[in-house]
Amino acid sequence: MAKDTRTIEDLSQWEDARRMLYKAREEGIATVWDRLAEQTPHCTFCDQGLTCSKCVMGPCRINPKGPKRTLGVCGADADLTVARNFGRFIAAGAASHSDHGRDLLEVLEAVGQGENTEYAVRDPQKLAKLCAEVGLDLAGLDTTAQAKALAEVFFKDFGTRNHALSLLSRAPQKRRDIWQATRTTPRGIDRECVEMLHRTHMGVDCDPTSICLHAARTALADGWGGSMIGTELSDVLFGTPRPATVAANLGVLADDKVNILVHGHSPVVSEMILAAARDPAMLAKARAVGAAGINVAGLCCTGNEVLMRQGVPLAGNHLMTELALVTGAVEMVVADYQCIMPSLVQIAACYHTRFVTTSEKAQFPGATHLEFTLGNAREMAFQAVTLAIEAFPRRDAARVEIPVAPVSLRTGYSNEAILEALGGSAEPLLAAVKIGLVRGVVGIVGCNNPKLPHDGLLVGLARELIKQDVLVVVTGCATVAMGKAGLMTMDGLEQAGVGLAEFCGRFDLPPVLHVGSCVDNSRILALCALLADALGVDISDLPVAASAPEWYSEKAAAIGLYAVASGVMTHLGLPPNILGSELVTKLALGGLEDVFGAHFVVEPDPVKAAAVISRRITAKRLALGLNDRYDGTVYS
Amino acid sequence: MAKDTRTIEDLSQWEDARRMLYKAREEGIATVWDRLAEQTPHCTFCDQGLTCSKCVMGPCRINPKGPKRTLGVCGADADLTVARNFGRFIAAGAASHSDHGRDLLEVLEAVGQGENTEYAVRDPQKLAKLCAEVGLDLAGLDTTAQAKALAEVFFKDFGTRNHALSLLSRAPQKRRDIWQATRTTPRGIDRECVEMLHRTHMGVDCDPTSICLHAARTALADGWGGSMIGTELSDVLFGTPRPATVAANLGVLADDKVNILVHGHSPVVSEMILAAARDPAMLAKARAVGAAGINVAGLCCTGNEVLMRQGVPLAGNHLMTELALVTGAVEMVVADYQCIMPSLVQIAACYHTRFVTTSEKAQFPGATHLEFTLGNAREMAFQAVTLAIEAFPRRDAARVEIPVAPVSLRTGYSNEAILEALGGSAEPLLAAVKIGLVRGVVGIVGCNNPKLPHDGLLVGLARELIKQDVLVVVTGCATVAMGKAGLMTMDGLEQAGVGLAEFCGRFDLPPVLHVGSCVDNSRILALCALLADALGVDISDLPVAASAPEWYSEKAAAIGLYAVASGVMTHLGLPPNILGSELVTKLALGGLEDVFGAHFVVEPDPVKAAAVISRRITAKRLALGLNDRYDGTVYS
Repeated sequence: MAKDTRTIEDLSQWEDARRMLYKAREEGIATVWDRLAEQTPHCTFCDQGLTCSKCVMGPCRINPKGPKRTLGVCGADADLTVARNFGRFIAAGAASHSDHGRDLLEVLEAVGQGENTEYAVRDPQKLAKLCAEVGLDLAGLDTTAQAKALAEVFFKDFGTRNHALSLLSRAPQKRRDIWQATRTTPRGIDRECVEMLHRTHMGVDCDPTSICLHAARTALADGWGGSMIGTELSDVLFGTPRPATVAANLGVLADDKVNILVHGHSPVVSEMILAAARDPAMLAKARAVGAAGINVAGLCCTGNEVLMRQGVPLAGNHLMTELALVTGAVEMVVADYQCIMPSLVQIAACYHTRFVTTSEKAQFPGATHLEFTLGNAREMAFQAVTLAIEAFPRRDAARVEIPVAPVSLRTGYSNEAILEALGGSAEPLLAAVKIGLVRGVVGIVGCNNPKLPHDGLLVGLARELIKQDVLVVVTGCATVAMGKAGLMTMDGLEQAGVGLAEFCGRFDLPPVLHVGSCVDNSRILALCALLADALGVDISDLPVAASAPEWYSEKAAAIGLYAVASGVMTHLGLPPNILGSELVTKLALGGLEDVFGAHFVVEPDPVKAAAVISRRITAKRLALGLNDRYDGTVYS
Repeated sequence: MAKDTRTIEDLSQWEDARRMLYKAREEGIATVWDRLAEQTPHCTFCDQGLTCSKCVMGPCRINPKGPKRTLGVCGADADLTVARNFGRFIAAGAASHSDHGRDLLEVLEAVGQGENTEYAVRDPQKLAKLCAEVGLDLAGLDTTAQAKALAEVFFKDFGTRNHALSLLSRAPQKRRDIWQATRTTPRGIDRECVEMLHRTHMGVDCDPTSICLHAARTALADGWGGSMIGTELSDVLFGTPRPATVAANLGVLADDKVNILVHGHSPVVSEMILAAARDPAMLAKARAVGAAGINVAGLCCTGNEVLMRQGVPLAGNHLMTELALVTGAVEMVVADYQCIMPSLVQIAACYHTRFVTTSEKAQFPGATHLEFTLGNAREMAFQAVTLAIEAFPRRDAARVEIPVAPVSLRTGYSNEAILEALGGSAEPLLAAVKIGLVRGVVGIVGCNNPKLPHDGLLVGLARELIKQDVLVVVTGCATVAMGKAGLMTMDGLEQAGVGLAEFCGRFDLPPVLHVGSCVDNSRILALCALLADALGVDISDLPVAASAPEWYSEKAAAIGLYAVASGVMTHLGLPPNILGSELVTKLALGGLEDVFGAHFVVEPDPVKAAAVISRRITAKRLALGLNDRYDGTVYS
């Protein structure tokens, strides 16, 4: 990216974002876009993955074209340098999702030990199903004992002694055979991350391809391990999502209520905040300071978690987090972890906004730290909500601007809910796919990136795909974008192709289904596995694809790689820092097809990206012996 | 470092190194110093830890002095950026040692399952002692059952469910209390590494101090966990080292024998190579191609492992690895993992030298990959040695230069061997310390770094310290340096102070004791704990210090940090990439003293470094109520 000369209108298509960007500018508040402009142009070496600071013989900058600096001090060339950096990038993403999954597992363990009164099993049916799935004998086990037994199994997945993660049993046998043959079967979640750090230490794995394959194994440990455990246990502990209609965008902030934004990724804290905010005593306190009530709204993936399960309105995605504070109407941000820009503390300090951190592993200088533990979560939540209430009278009405009215979106499409909507099985979807009423299914996931027009690729790609009779499932920061674009209600069917509209209309489904937060991309894996098994094929044979068009994070890269390694072609709107290596780049954009039956596509234009994805769906349909278009068969 | 203008005489003090550097230059072979010269000057941002490529909103370069680029795109400032980079640097080091420890644990597990005939318990006494130490009831357990039971315990240390690692029981209670109070008690070895990756993801831990404390926890998981398990199990499986005198430097290569260099860090492969090389059938094969025999010599830490236990000569340390090949006399390098410069494959290709890799996780393009597993190690070792024998006739005598005659050094000073030398307990050493005959003990450890004169700081510092009656213990790449300098035989006492010479002379000890490889720095931790307990004090009260004067690797940084977090002041000859943060730099060089009772010292001059260390010893002695000099008490 050359020097950044974009106007506010270029930065975001949304009224709420633009108005807050103007307000921020007027109030002298720097945002992520301002910092990006200062950081642009980026260092070419770093941008291409060609710098290495992994030992103090360096740091090194590799210039593959030479004549000088073709090798690092240790002798690493461009390919090795890029692969090492990429390997660690993936490991950090996988580690983040998985450490989040571990937290859910520790809650389950506490519940299973009967020690904890703060949390409980809210979906005993799902717990029993999971226990059976991992081979536990349920005879004579009550819910508590089941929780204990399941925790034992999943803790082993985080350890060293398994030869394969327990939930790999969900993957089609053909896929598992590929992993076995390519030595990418993930053994232990933590182990693969740690081995990646080891491999990328100076003088360990010096084969870029070998490192990339281990990156795939590490990513698979995330998708079929850490993330999947996170999703499943969140459902067990907080309830499996069911369809609901909820409000979204910055208009969900209330000008007469105490506004609390929950931000981060874990439901462990936010569910407690919500409970406290709904407590009559807290409501009375709020009224006592002149507020009409307490309004909890979500940001990012924590927002997705409580949106899916509790119907909490969603204020915005990654690039809206700073702008939400610029409304001047937020009493408190309660942060757990991940994707919480450090800048938020400074922006909060420009207003009356309290910034509360809750996790030992995510502290922010200048924040109020209320550390939530399994034993004190309820008490801490009441403390936090009290602080928010106390902040309300300090709100400066003259600086408040809630820029738009909220929109509605449908949420709650867990796999269980999708199957339920279809009448209890995937058959109606498969039938629709077979006759071409629905040409395929694409997961659009991931973040925002200030380098790209905010939500532009997300929405542009979704619109193109649904127009072409492709059902879209979304998670994470993609969610609110689709909601703002009107694609997550039944009205969205107006923008869908005839076939998709007919299918969705029949089952009362919007054309874009919200399946959860970023860890919930594991739901998409499970859905793909289910569809593949039903058809007796591998995941890579399905007319499906994935896209993280506006991705920014290491976690998103891990998601993309586990999708590809699971057999799903994955589109990215911009590349990871790998372009300095021809070998790694070719592997990502092509070579992985030979290994996993899927590869990455990088394309910043949503229409072109949709065309690539559509061609992929066509090819997969033809290979399955299906017509590419609706074949006229009556769908009944 | 500005442009590199050093002569060959500046690069190394040793004749073997210099002659090979001249030969490499004549033969047009680039070495690590040439590549360093090309990479010099380094990027200032990277060098100071101020670049971040942890997401694709960047990469960012932070300029703490501004006016522009003071913050990354996410809002991270210089302190946070440096802390994140440093945290990952430490995690990678800890992960590497610990993944090595895991490999030993898997060998122990196989032995304990009675499935494996390749490996066995060679020190059943140590096994029994370890079992008792971790609280296992030995009644009725034979060696195999003990191996199985101990493996169970240590596997848990790699998992998620412990609240503290099992071998923390070795640390003084006061030290454990400090860790508890500062939340740095390591819980699980892999867990801490993974949590560090998570914390340093965008928007997780944004408090530089919190990240640095978790870095300490991660390092402690290495020192008292992964490394300590690696050391203890290597002793169990391959024998606890006992004193021996062995040859060292490039002169250990034989001009009439098949020369095999074992390189890397793990004894699991090298012990098998050694067994195969000593096999009569192999010797006969070697003679059949005109060789007088098979000569196995060691490089780096694999070299230390087989030096300590098998009396295998040590050819050289980190900066000698390339130069060993330049002799033209090496038939084969057998590499396991870590610190194996990628350049070695290219240099081997300039000669008849075979480069054999043995681990799935350390592959090198252009190498011959013979993958050693627990089931096939013996067979693979015979294959490797056969390849080496077959290479012997291709040796070009005209290009062979073995530059010097070998020197002798004493090795084998495991803690058990030290205590045995002292008559069965540490009392004689403590008595000598109390009266000032021995003023203190310093561990000099770690690597070489081509930025510094080869072995210059290592030897310079050791000479200064022993002169001042400080007993020195060494590991890893420091070993051969001390050996070449003549400090590891009884003749070395001529360079020692009067008190130290008297003490060492009495117990037949050289003034510099070889305690092992880099993972064996855990022996020094255990020794410190033992001395502290004997005196009823904390480790930080002891007149001890550590130094990694010529360190280069992430592993060395982890070692330094676990030393400091264990209460041992640690000297480094050059800083990690942290100088871009005043906060992190001050923490490292001072603030950690308030947390752990120890801190880092950075000083490139060996005499000045010795003075700092000596002053520290003086202060600690005085605080313990001891005279700083020999007080005249008769030592009996």
